[in-house]
Amino acid sequence: MSLPLKLDHIGIAVRNLSEAISMYRDKIGLELLSVEEVKEENVRIAMFRIGDSRIELLEPLTADGAVARFLSKRGPGIHHIAFTYADARSASDRLREKGMKLVYSDVEVIPGLREVNFVHPESTGGVLLEIVKRLE
Amino acid sequence: MSLPLKLDHIGIAVRNLSEAISMYRDKIGLELLSVEEVKEENVRIAMFRIGDSRIELLEPLTADGAVARFLSKRGPGIHHIAFTYADARSASDRLREKGMKLVYSDVEVIPGLREVNFVHPESTGGVLLEIVKRLE
Repeated sequence: MSLPLKLDHIGIAVRNLSEAISMYRDKIGLELLSVEEVKEENVRIAMFRIGDSRIELLEPLTADGAVARFLSKRGPGIHHIAFTYADARSASDRLREKGMKLVYSDVEVIPGLREVNFVHPESTGGVLLEIVKRLE
Repeated sequence: MSLPLKLDHIGIAVRNLSEAISMYRDKIGLELLSVEEVKEENVRIAMFRIGDSRIELLEPLTADGAVARFLSKRGPGIHHIAFTYADARSASDRLREKGMKLVYSDVEVIPGLREVNFVHPESTGGVLLEIVKRLE
């Protein structure tokens, strides 16, 4: 229940989503699954399939927000990794009990899509770790 | 042959391998597969299973080498991602034909274990991408 099942996705911050999509699709040869704007998270997202996992490209919609800050501080590159769990809430509770710092006090629920939380990079040695339960 | 089959692993640079191993094993709850010193690459590596993929922790053995330079420049965190291919040589050739910069002119063969090459972050928007064919 509260242990990671698999690699859900790798999140990659990009400056120009169209250019990055053509690189991952036409040069690397991954299958593009979807492109969508997520206003709540201030990003445009392209999702690619690789095996039973995914690559998620993130382009900020505006100059504020977490991904825009990451880009101006570190430049484009790998932004986070995400593990799939059967239960995001019990995973968050377990990690909190182990002394790790979670970003949200309760999981964020995107109805019909997913439940997520993040472990803060302070707790993991510099890795932003997303906890995902897929509802799709 | 020359398209990525799945996520082989995520490589994470760490300063202290023992501490990082206890975090991934005892707090996150991943299964530790192996710990080995790879003198040729100047690193000590701990490998964890997650689903049908892996997390690879890299601790530099000395103050020079790629991982040590990464740590002093960016601090600990995600260092590279690796895709599994059926043929590392034809994958390298295909990517080179598409205009991408490969790190090795020919693949590096670790007999009985793997064949690898890397796509330079310049070509990928800041992502060090490892090409792996597993021989195990």
